[in-house]
Amino acid sequence: MQRTLIKDTPQKKREEVLIKGWVRVRRDHGKLIFLDIRDRSGLIQTVVPSVSQSWYKTAQGLNTEDAVEVKGKINKRPENTINRGLPTGEIEIEVLELKLLAKAKTPPFDMGSNSLNLELPTLLDNRSLTIRHPKIAAIFSVQSTIAQAFRESLWKEGFTEVFVPAIVPSATEGGAEVFPIEYYSRKAYLAQSPQLYKQMTVPVYERVFTLAHAYRAEPSITTRHLSEYLSLDCEIGFIDSFHDLMDQAEKTTKYIFDKVKKENINELKMYGITLPVLDKPIPRIKLKEAQEILLKRGLVDHRNEPDLDPTDEKEICKWAQEETGNPFVFITHYPTKKRPFYTMPDKDDPNYTLSFDLIGINEEWVTGGQRINDYDQLISNIREWGNDPANFGMYLQAFEYGMPPEGGFAMGLERITKDILGLSNVREASLFPRDMERVDERFSKTKEK
Amino acid sequence: MQRTLIKDTPQKKREEVLIKGWVRVRRDHGKLIFLDIRDRSGLIQTVVPSVSQSWYKTAQGLNTEDAVEVKGKINKRPENTINRGLPTGEIEIEVLELKLLAKAKTPPFDMGSNSLNLELPTLLDNRSLTIRHPKIAAIFSVQSTIAQAFRESLWKEGFTEVFVPAIVPSATEGGAEVFPIEYYSRKAYLAQSPQLYKQMTVPVYERVFTLAHAYRAEPSITTRHLSEYLSLDCEIGFIDSFHDLMDQAEKTTKYIFDKVKKENINELKMYGITLPVLDKPIPRIKLKEAQEILLKRGLVDHRNEPDLDPTDEKEICKWAQEETGNPFVFITHYPTKKRPFYTMPDKDDPNYTLSFDLIGINEEWVTGGQRINDYDQLISNIREWGNDPANFGMYLQAFEYGMPPEGGFAMGLERITKDILGLSNVREASLFPRDMERVDERFSKTKEK
Repeated sequence: MQRTLIKDTPQKKREEVLIKGWVRVRRDHGKLIFLDIRDRSGLIQTVVPSVSQSWYKTAQGLNTEDAVEVKGKINKRPENTINRGLPTGEIEIEVLELKLLAKAKTPPFDMGSNSLNLELPTLLDNRSLTIRHPKIAAIFSVQSTIAQAFRESLWKEGFTEVFVPAIVPSATEGGAEVFPIEYYSRKAYLAQSPQLYKQMTVPVYERVFTLAHAYRAEPSITTRHLSEYLSLDCEIGFIDSFHDLMDQAEKTTKYIFDKVKKENINELKMYGITLPVLDKPIPRIKLKEAQEILLKRGLVDHRNEPDLDPTDEKEICKWAQEETGNPFVFITHYPTKKRPFYTMPDKDDPNYTLSFDLIGINEEWVTGGQRINDYDQLISNIREWGNDPANFGMYLQAFEYGMPPEGGFAMGLERITKDILGLSNVREASLFPRDMERVDERFSKTKEK
Repeated sequence: MQRTLIKDTPQKKREEVLIKGWVRVRRDHGKLIFLDIRDRSGLIQTVVPSVSQSWYKTAQGLNTEDAVEVKGKINKRPENTINRGLPTGEIEIEVLELKLLAKAKTPPFDMGSNSLNLELPTLLDNRSLTIRHPKIAAIFSVQSTIAQAFRESLWKEGFTEVFVPAIVPSATEGGAEVFPIEYYSRKAYLAQSPQLYKQMTVPVYERVFTLAHAYRAEPSITTRHLSEYLSLDCEIGFIDSFHDLMDQAEKTTKYIFDKVKKENINELKMYGITLPVLDKPIPRIKLKEAQEILLKRGLVDHRNEPDLDPTDEKEICKWAQEETGNPFVFITHYPTKKRPFYTMPDKDDPNYTLSFDLIGINEEWVTGGQRINDYDQLISNIREWGNDPANFGMYLQAFEYGMPPEGGFAMGLERITKDILGLSNVREASLFPRDMERVDERFSKTKEK
């Protein structure tokens, strides 16, 4: 007998079906046993009548997370027991045969409740179990939609996907926040971003994107940073100005919202989220202008700061919401000294760059900018930023041979997943988050062993 | 004026257009200068008439890889100068305006020739340049099609894409071939494969796939291995037998061929490749049966070997070609001791496993198998394989809570790119290949500095 997915059961009333899945809850009601079964497609109630079949005993011993196979007949539920909140709520399966496929230990918390409500360390210590909870599983369903939406929004515009390395010869973006690798008898490093490599492929495909792991050895724990994250990166050659980049970032952001709205209706409902519409152009203002606006709105005077702080970001999103109906705004022209060496300075005022951040839903959503495409200017900037051009051999080679005006942007997959679902910590949006305290298990726990 | 892509120029006869791209070849013919320009979409001949405009001097100074912007009029070529081998071969652009966007150094070899014909070290030492050659660029166009075909073939079957970590707490697949990371004040490792993590997500989504970097600190240089490669991995829960896995591997392989055939016509033509049809089921034979076949076909007696060697693989592909018209065959039932600890032994003969390799176009194309899904059996195997269950905390947790019968397979993106295009070394199919001698630049070269 062919397996039926739970989501398809409402179309098979009165038929016999075979379903496979996991016990979510077992309820004993006198002589009846109710088993709520989940599979990848949904949840359904099954009922085991009190009969003398051998598998009745099996049913009595079943617990949450036991993997089972159920043959049964689909019946309409009595009117007064219909569950309107569930797509399968008008039916139930009368169990005719039951097979235990794999036994589960008793979970250390109630996996059958609507929300797990666990402290973050507990949630992550039990990650192989907690990701099965429908509300946690929803996060990574949305995440997979976001990733594909990113790709689709760029394919439509003639981009090519490239695969770039994560092992790099030197700490190219500067700083000590880099993980060294024992690479045979040498040292190599984990890439801080796919930035340099995506640029190197512009003279091949002009418009490229990559989904690549990026690594930051951040010596601190924040709710926004991971030691390993997935960077959604794109790069565009032959741009007329850095507005071309913001145009694409805007299109891509809108595309992501539209696709998540379409494909993750249930997941958004679980989190009570209504996504922005982005029907009006996103405002583009200089950092200095933003700082003036924030001052006028009563915030602390940050006009000499090189960036917005989290309070500024929240407030400028509020401002954008009032202006356009959406909490999104491009902040441009960050100070040259505060951006990476490859950022293009504005000819009209070289202390500021043709860079931008898209601030949305209270925090940085996208970061990007035009890059320096002149070889000599790049060499001189690498030196000025305290690095050695000899560490950039392959990168610089790309600029020796005709690099057109170009730029790009990047967004962190976990961060935008967090923002879209209104999660409070980016770790919740990573299946197996890495930080200075944890690689799967917490280090403090490992020590105890 | 809006830019026109070169591939669209044949639709714009007699019109004025703006194109952007790189000079591929400059030819001086008396008073005329011919410039072949390439962009991401194709190649076109432009002609600069000998006139007194200021940019005529610019044209005289142009060389291969200079990035330029050209305004011009599209004319039909004289009948006797038509190039039938080029999609734009019936037209040329009469240059009306020319702008140099970025100057290139003189390349150290002829980038304008049909093939680069460089030794591998030279090809890779100059990677930022050589990837621009149309025949090299073709490799990574095909690669991006393969990656997307892999995803599409699985989405169609209800799979979810997951993103798994590359930083792992221990060397889980055994062996010394692992790269240690200085992870804050501890040691962590680069994942040898996404295997364990994809398995952990089966109880969430049942059918998952991931495109993930995998790392092997192979202490040798072969034409088949990279230190960093991209693994196309999938995993399927609730299987009835390991034949379900081979069914999917077969579907996915066929899907990849079909998509590459459709989307990379030019690239396949450049390499003179006709891809297999896979219209007949791929044979599934046990390793022992394969060894008998090979012995009968006159090869050295390898009936006591735990695997096929490269000569065996070539010959068994020949056999399959004769049997089915396609050089593909599943080899099953590899010896238990030679497969990873998680491989499911065959109940009927526990010395052999429910594992398989798909051998195709002369080498291993896919590897996969059913996994042990019982917690106790897994613990005992980890011990037997000389590892400590304490190193597998998060992985084992997935099996404590009802893991259904499951399995999956993996294919190396670079390797199948190499095989599809008939390349001789897997390094040619990696944009920036890493091995024990090279991270971008050759180490021997770095030393010289």
